[in-house]
Amino acid sequence: MNDGSGFSVKDPLLTPRFAGHISFFRLPVTEDPAGVDIAVCGVPFDGGVGNRNGARLGPRQIRELSVNAVKPYHPISNSSPFQRCRFADLGDAPVNPIDLGHSLELIEGFYRRIHAAGALPLTAGGDHLVPLPILRVIARDRPVGLVHLDAHADTFDHFFDARFRYNHGTTFRRAAEEGLIDPKRTIQIGIRGPRFGPDDLGFSLRSGMRVVTIEEFFELGLARVIDEIARVAGDGPTYVSIDVDALDAVYVPGTGAPEIGGFGPREAIAMIRGLAGLELVGADVVEVSPPLDSGGGTARIAAVLMFELAEVMADTRLARRVPGR
Amino acid sequence: MNDGSGFSVKDPLLTPRFAGHISFFRLPVTEDPAGVDIAVCGVPFDGGVGNRNGARLGPRQIRELSVNAVKPYHPISNSSPFQRCRFADLGDAPVNPIDLGHSLELIEGFYRRIHAAGALPLTAGGDHLVPLPILRVIARDRPVGLVHLDAHADTFDHFFDARFRYNHGTTFRRAAEEGLIDPKRTIQIGIRGPRFGPDDLGFSLRSGMRVVTIEEFFELGLARVIDEIARVAGDGPTYVSIDVDALDAVYVPGTGAPEIGGFGPREAIAMIRGLAGLELVGADVVEVSPPLDSGGGTARIAAVLMFELAEVMADTRLARRVPGR
Amino acid sequence: MNDGSGFSVKDPLLTPRFAGHISFFRLPVTEDPAGVDIAVCGVPFDGGVGNRNGARLGPRQIRELSVNAVKPYHPISNSSPFQRCRFADLGDAPVNPIDLGHSLELIEGFYRRIHAAGALPLTAGGDHLVPLPILRVIARDRPVGLVHLDAHADTFDHFFDARFRYNHGTTFRRAAEEGLIDPKRTIQIGIRGPRFGPDDLGFSLRSGMRVVTIEEFFELGLARVIDEIARVAGDGPTYVSIDVDALDAVYVPGTGAPEIGGFGPREAIAMIRGLAGLELVGADVVEVSPPLDSGGGTARIAAVLMFELAEVMADTRLARRVPGR
Amino acid sequence: MNDGSGFSVKDPLLTPRFAGHISFFRLPVTEDPAGVDIAVCGVPFDGGVGNRNGARLGPRQIRELSVNAVKPYHPISNSSPFQRCRFADLGDAPVNPIDLGHSLELIEGFYRRIHAAGALPLTAGGDHLVPLPILRVIARDRPVGLVHLDAHADTFDHFFDARFRYNHGTTFRRAAEEGLIDPKRTIQIGIRGPRFGPDDLGFSLRSGMRVVTIEEFFELGLARVIDEIARVAGDGPTYVSIDVDALDAVYVPGTGAPEIGGFGPREAIAMIRGLAGLELVGADVVEVSPPLDSGGGTARIAAVLMFELAEVMADTRLARRVPGR
Amino acid sequence: MNDGSGFSVKDPLLTPRFAGHISFFRLPVTEDPAGVDIAVCGVPFDGGVGNRNGARLGPRQIRELSVNAVKPYHPISNSSPFQRCRFADLGDAPVNPIDLGHSLELIEGFYRRIHAAGALPLTAGGDHLVPLPILRVIARDRPVGLVHLDAHADTFDHFFDARFRYNHGTTFRRAAEEGLIDPKRTIQIGIRGPRFGPDDLGFSLRSGMRVVTIEEFFELGLARVIDEIARVAGDGPTYVSIDVDALDAVYVPGTGAPEIGGFGPREAIAMIRGLAGLELVGADVVEVSPPLDSGGGTARIAAVLMFELAEVMADTRLARRVPGR
Amino acid sequence: MNDGSGFSVKDPLLTPRFAGHISFFRLPVTEDPAGVDIAVCGVPFDGGVGNRNGARLGPRQIRELSVNAVKPYHPISNSSPFQRCRFADLGDAPVNPIDLGHSLELIEGFYRRIHAAGALPLTAGGDHLVPLPILRVIARDRPVGLVHLDAHADTFDHFFDARFRYNHGTTFRRAAEEGLIDPKRTIQIGIRGPRFGPDDLGFSLRSGMRVVTIEEFFELGLARVIDEIARVAGDGPTYVSIDVDALDAVYVPGTGAPEIGGFGPREAIAMIRGLAGLELVGADVVEVSPPLDSGGGTARIAAVLMFELAEVMADTRLARRVPGR
Repeated sequence: MNDGSGFSVKDPLLTPRFAGHISFFRLPVTEDPAGVDIAVCGVPFDGGVGNRNGARLGPRQIRELSVNAVKPYHPISNSSPFQRCRFADLGDAPVNPIDLGHSLELIEGFYRRIHAAGALPLTAGGDHLVPLPILRVIARDRPVGLVHLDAHADTFDHFFDARFRYNHGTTFRRAAEEGLIDPKRTIQIGIRGPRFGPDDLGFSLRSGMRVVTIEEFFELGLARVIDEIARVAGDGPTYVSIDVDALDAVYVPGTGAPEIGGFGPREAIAMIRGLAGLELVGADVVEVSPPLDSGGGTARIAAVLMFELAEVMADTRLARRVPGR
Repeated sequence: MNDGSGFSVKDPLLTPRFAGHISFFRLPVTEDPAGVDIAVCGVPFDGGVGNRNGARLGPRQIRELSVNAVKPYHPISNSSPFQRCRFADLGDAPVNPIDLGHSLELIEGFYRRIHAAGALPLTAGGDHLVPLPILRVIARDRPVGLVHLDAHADTFDHFFDARFRYNHGTTFRRAAEEGLIDPKRTIQIGIRGPRFGPDDLGFSLRSGMRVVTIEEFFELGLARVIDEIARVAGDGPTYVSIDVDALDAVYVPGTGAPEIGGFGPREAIAMIRGLAGLELVGADVVEVSPPLDSGGGTARIAAVLMFELAEVMADTRLARRVPGR
Repeated sequence: MNDGSGFSVKDPLLTPRFAGHISFFRLPVTEDPAGVDIAVCGVPFDGGVGNRNGARLGPRQIRELSVNAVKPYHPISNSSPFQRCRFADLGDAPVNPIDLGHSLELIEGFYRRIHAAGALPLTAGGDHLVPLPILRVIARDRPVGLVHLDAHADTFDHFFDARFRYNHGTTFRRAAEEGLIDPKRTIQIGIRGPRFGPDDLGFSLRSGMRVVTIEEFFELGLARVIDEIARVAGDGPTYVSIDVDALDAVYVPGTGAPEIGGFGPREAIAMIRGLAGLELVGADVVEVSPPLDSGGGTARIAAVLMFELAEVMADTRLARRVPGR
Repeated sequence: MNDGSGFSVKDPLLTPRFAGHISFFRLPVTEDPAGVDIAVCGVPFDGGVGNRNGARLGPRQIRELSVNAVKPYHPISNSSPFQRCRFADLGDAPVNPIDLGHSLELIEGFYRRIHAAGALPLTAGGDHLVPLPILRVIARDRPVGLVHLDAHADTFDHFFDARFRYNHGTTFRRAAEEGLIDPKRTIQIGIRGPRFGPDDLGFSLRSGMRVVTIEEFFELGLARVIDEIARVAGDGPTYVSIDVDALDAVYVPGTGAPEIGGFGPREAIAMIRGLAGLELVGADVVEVSPPLDSGGGTARIAAVLMFELAEVMADTRLARRVPGR
Repeated sequence: MNDGSGFSVKDPLLTPRFAGHISFFRLPVTEDPAGVDIAVCGVPFDGGVGNRNGARLGPRQIRELSVNAVKPYHPISNSSPFQRCRFADLGDAPVNPIDLGHSLELIEGFYRRIHAAGALPLTAGGDHLVPLPILRVIARDRPVGLVHLDAHADTFDHFFDARFRYNHGTTFRRAAEEGLIDPKRTIQIGIRGPRFGPDDLGFSLRSGMRVVTIEEFFELGLARVIDEIARVAGDGPTYVSIDVDALDAVYVPGTGAPEIGGFGPREAIAMIRGLAGLELVGADVVEVSPPLDSGGGTARIAAVLMFELAEVMADTRLARRVPGR
Repeated sequence: MNDGSGFSVKDPLLTPRFAGHISFFRLPVTEDPAGVDIAVCGVPFDGGVGNRNGARLGPRQIRELSVNAVKPYHPISNSSPFQRCRFADLGDAPVNPIDLGHSLELIEGFYRRIHAAGALPLTAGGDHLVPLPILRVIARDRPVGLVHLDAHADTFDHFFDARFRYNHGTTFRRAAEEGLIDPKRTIQIGIRGPRFGPDDLGFSLRSGMRVVTIEEFFELGLARVIDEIARVAGDGPTYVSIDVDALDAVYVPGTGAPEIGGFGPREAIAMIRGLAGLELVGADVVEVSPPLDSGGGTARIAAVLMFELAEVMADTRLARRVPGR
């Protein structure tokens, strides 16, 4: 399980999965992104949550489940992404739990170093504001496409009054306004549930995002949704952002705003596998709140989705890795 | 979010959903049904439960989740039933937790005032005996049709000996015998699981009720089940009664008699939306037992199903509202 | 509910299901297998678990749920297997919780008495090593077919080093090597999730077992999977072994190695019902770990699956019961 | 561990405590009280509960914990009460969960058989109405003394209106009125917490009961409270009734009306041990509600208190056992 | 239970405690503080928490428990504070969950109206930053004394860097610096546990606060601690602030930073009762985090402590109520 | 917080305690014991448990709580043991979860390296068999004294039959027989609860160990128990072994065999602090079973007890550190 480069994972058949130190997927831990292809990291921040919080504890819990619930080989390729590519656990971004603005700066700084080293980030949140500082780093030069699984569109303008424009419900409006994502190459999947008002989806629709409500999801069927993702994202760099509340509430009790009536992990996995061929530049799984997650089932799902993202990102990375690195 | 009549809900984008007093859907609280179109209320009674109890704590928990989990706009109509109609939270029916017969009287009295004022009741139980005193009020003049989602038919004659004829497993036999429901216009959906004996469904079948077992449900498929509901209920006043154990046990751990192998919230929501066009005279969601519901997932589902019922009842009510009111 | 032979169950309409002593399905308790058709028993052993344990507490919890959650009549036959056949609760096999080898001997001795009396065993585990000593008894004379529902193939050679060949991940390799199961008549259904390495399924495939991964399961669809089970098992004696982690993790939080993305209880029930016609010689449901099972949902599913196995085993047993017994 | 009379318990060093069938303390199970000195039994009834219910599930949970948490030898006598006396598990009294009056009759009938056989009852509740039908049997001939540990005096006249005189808050007023207990020989210990009104303790005080509030308990200290129990109960037959909510809420989350600020299990055990020398005619531990008891800690305490009661009752019984039995 | 002024609570012997709408102690709900003696209210804010959050959900949970766990009469006075004084539930202060500074302004505004009406505030938090805006209102004119029960002194200067001076660990340093509390009349009780560094208590000690560590608490004994509280607070207006983590962690699992080895609810209650005679101008109970509180035990304790505070504040208020009001 | 030698801990005021990688007390992680004074490590093994297991998951959970619940400075010395001495997290001993004998070898090998490097081990279990292989390393040359806090004496000869001599209930009998501990310098504190038979304490008493039952503990009082510990252990090397079930069950739900009626964390901390002056050569805290520990309270206590042990071991180590190291 060692590719000779120092990027290896411990063999769970020799060291039981309940023993030893914890890192994402038992990857080597480093603070130095040099030579890393894919940087797995956490952002323990939930200051953007308007309702039930606790997602600041997410990265720790997902790490734990990534060790307990995930083995290194993928069942379809029957090979390990951690052998095909150089993965490492870069730790958690610094945050200031009592200040949102300061946290955005700290997070952006953390990802700047990763990006400068040429590594692609794979992130465990934290709340859904987390992608904004990441996109400010990796999409600084040109807007990226976005594949967004979520029960909510997160394109509000503000909560409370117009001074409060940064929170987990406004991320992708800000991202579009700042030119970080291209609405025409953005697809939002799984949107459902009661709304605050008649314009909850207004910005998404007016800006040209493709919104697949849960009703349309089940009408189209999984295969056609996967085709639609590929069609919308098209060529060009694409970011993937998965709010675990995209899944039906029964699978993800451990999140701030669960919504019933969604799809399940099988559909989520299939959609991630369907990303093969896209040019992925980063991905995240967010909004896991351990205090609300009796039994750890939500973090388990997040850990497996991150593994599936690792598998597909490994291929993207390999296809584009500069020869000689 | 205010229709000018005093029937408004608080804006969750201004007041966080975890703050403020609790009422169903944040509706205004009143003890006076005058001018109310749809009266949302609770019946904290579980004296009819032969197995695991706790449903007396249901109304309080469903109220809580209706505030935390439900926003005011419906995703299909993109409008709010609470604006289209005058909804209010009428509080809980009085009950006597140590006497079943007294409780039936108290509950009936509570609904008589609501009915007299012309409001349609939307009820959170409580156990499944709760619909009986409600039907004694709203179906006093003529039998109504019944759309009944449940894992169990609830048409037993008695438990123990023949003296004990009123409990949560005999409700719809009593209702049929008392001429409150029309068996020919009654459909029971989701029936499944091991039985006490060979005649568990006997009364339902002999009296002419349409019984859709879970096996038939999956054979027919959702669309044809929805058609069948409309066909059986037909024209004429119809009551809707949803035992949360109609859903698969994984979605509703917080109920006294969960049964595995049922449908999910998506199917339940679809069936409720399919009621549009019927003449609904009342509805309930029952058998949520919070002490058995780690995480609150069962109450969340009940709250959303009540919201979906509110949406479809609003249309019924509008279509039939006497001009001038 | 009494067939006149002393093999009866208590009527849950007279004695509430939360009262009285506990036995599997409220069956009579005996230590003497004489005259018993189907012996329901437990094996409270989890010494073969390499990861999260606790399954030693499974039989007790499944017994509890079999009383609370299961009634005696089957919804399809509308008759009770406990009337058609003589069932009894034979108690738990003796085990030595601190010694794996000693436990295998003790368990084998326990089943030898049951087998000698002509009873078919229906077992609640314990971990997935439990079937090995059972098969050593009932398949001593000739290999049996195997219907195996599981997320994992359990055909590893060893964990740690080659001295440690007996654990819950090597059971069916040992069983094949010892000539207890016929790989050509073995079907493994629901296999999925990340793997330890590229050869996790190697023994299964090379020895000729039919492996239906979860991806193939959903491609084929339930009906064709059921056909495939019948085709592979064919004629001849067949054993059924169900690891509850075959089901999606959301249904079975209370197991040591839950895997997301599996099928649900509906599919499991349908596959068991599809076994009608096979010559069943025994069955088990294993890997229920109550300390990991908040709410008891996992044990509930195990209890119902055991009831469905009881129904189909009753028919097998009746078809082959020696006249005069 | 066998006294040669068939009244033995299984050796937990040979059979693990998590295996085997469940009975109180692993005692032999019988429906026939003949020859039994002390009859351990359950009353799965909670129809008298005015607030949070679930105590109907108590006997089952206490049995389970009595097997898991209690071994057969007492640490002070270093002998086993189960060897000194003939104990048996007589099962659960029949109840009608939907009718309070019928349940009182059924329970009384159950205890009449036990009393007629000369056995002393040791009971697991159920709610605190349960002692009333027991006292109607064992105190029919003359009032008994009462040692009553509880946070609440349970001497109300009625809840709701004067028709509803039988519930878990009126038991000892009814018992006094019916001449079943002698108020002068009654001591209530641990009374505390906010009250419904100024007369909550009125009946207790006026009738001459000795009320030791929690404030007095801590002022007197444990040793003097134990003296006071002996002084009040004096000579003559005495019944012991322990509501688990007598203990501080932190120890007993699993009860309907926990009160903070009480004593702990150490004090409860010491008071029971202090009963040695009294003429005990029966005892109960009530108000354990498993659905409210995450972790089972409340049932564990109840099981140990029942064991301590068994130890002290064994001595009473031996001292008075008719020679030749 | 009605003093004729409209300030009454519902009788829990008529309406079960699990039914009806929820307010603190079932007090009347109003937004208008006119005529109110003591204003019970909540502050659902936890933006000042540097570690595990969730206290924003505290007011709702404490309200719920105040209804379920607290009756209206006090066991020592045998009278109801709610009859002696005019109490009302003023609802929750507005907050902005994503902005700390804005929240401080909103909270201060809310209390300004209460203070202007002459009512004393009794508050359920929220985190321990909550007292700061309250003190800015009620101690604006002169510093008040402070009785502070807590495991932590909360007198840090800042977390992270010097820009971040407002959080739940700096409250009482800010309060002292702003002249809101008089350090010489401040007593901090229950301080314990590992420290961040050698100067954790530096500001408290240097400014003259009386710090009673848990070690000193147990050395002195409860009675002398109560004397010490009275001595330090002396005459003059005094505020009481109780962080539930003052209690031993076993009693308060539902808080962000539980510390083992503290006192229990009995001691907390005794200290509150010992405040009689002081001139209380307000009080709070903070840091209840429901997502961390399995079973609701922490909120129950908070509710009872608030009731005990209500009792003692009622006397303060009566003693000083302007004649004629 | 850095002593210049690379042995530092992260500042929790800069990096929130919920962020970053996990090690015991945030100590540096290393596999090389060279230069380490005190080696903190885990043994994730529970194969010696005869009843409810899960303690194999203990080290991971205690690490987690040591980060969340423990800060680096001690409240009495007001200095940090981690500055005074060189501490490191050496990781977990290798174990074979399916073989007890193999595990004992693996664990012994792990500690041999630590001992050879001159470091004192501070261990998180695992079950109570874990001290045996540790003592085989550190007491190889001469028997050590033992301070043993536990509800059970753990000096049985065997469970089942005489072949099975190694499990968590025989550890200290084996240790005495192997000459690893000196019974005359051994004190066992907190022993209580029902017993398997009359000889449960036989070996302890006959071999000369000082047994302080819980009854004697409370009679003597804390101060005299602490004196007794010092008297018995005397001069000479001493090992400390703490089974968390020494504490009252209410504090430690997360352990296999909780016993009610014990002392609390305050007493445990005081006894550890009372060890100052002894020559400590190692210590452990064992039997934390996370699957049984809802809320994490048991692991929190274990983490704090380990911190208190670290404080007192640091002084021992400093007093005896060879000059020049």
